[in-house]
Amino acid sequence: MKFVAEIEILPLKGLLDPQGKAVANGLPKIGITTASNVRIGKFITMDLEAESADEAHKMAENACKKLLANLIMEGFNIRITAQ
Amino acid sequence: MKFVAEIEILPLKGLLDPQGKAVANGLPKIGITTASNVRIGKFITMDLEAESADEAHKMAENACKKLLANLIMEGFNIRITAQ
Repeated sequence: MKFVAEIEILPLKGLLDPQGKAVANGLPKIGITTASNVRIGKFITMDLEAESADEAHKMAENACKKLLANLIMEGFNIRITAQ
Repeated sequence: MKFVAEIEILPLKGLLDPQGKAVANGLPKIGITTASNVRIGKFITMDLEAESADEAHKMAENACKKLLANLIMEGFNIRITAQ
């Protein structure tokens, strides 16, 4: 079966996020004054061929841990949907 | 009211995604051989103070169009949740 994995990777809470800080500073200049706590990370999608959603989730988790995320500084969240 | 905006930004379909290509090439080396169509973009979260979810969505859309996304090369998707 074919699944789509959507992976969100964000810097862990409490860690410095200079990119997020830069965007937070830029938002008032385009008229958005009520934004706070801006955090910026990566968004990754991939198609996965797997036996079950569970197996696809394990594959995506494996990819995050070994390749996509830096677990010391980042956390990840995975969504699997059947295609 | 306080809302959380989650913004996904991805390179448009059909456009070259060299970062996604690099990850796709790396996945078989960690044992994931059934992945395809890997695409990599940005994931942004922010807290927004707004009158309604609709207003928060408009603010996030504005931020995407004017600051966060390059609309020539990227598409975006916004999720708003009440906090």
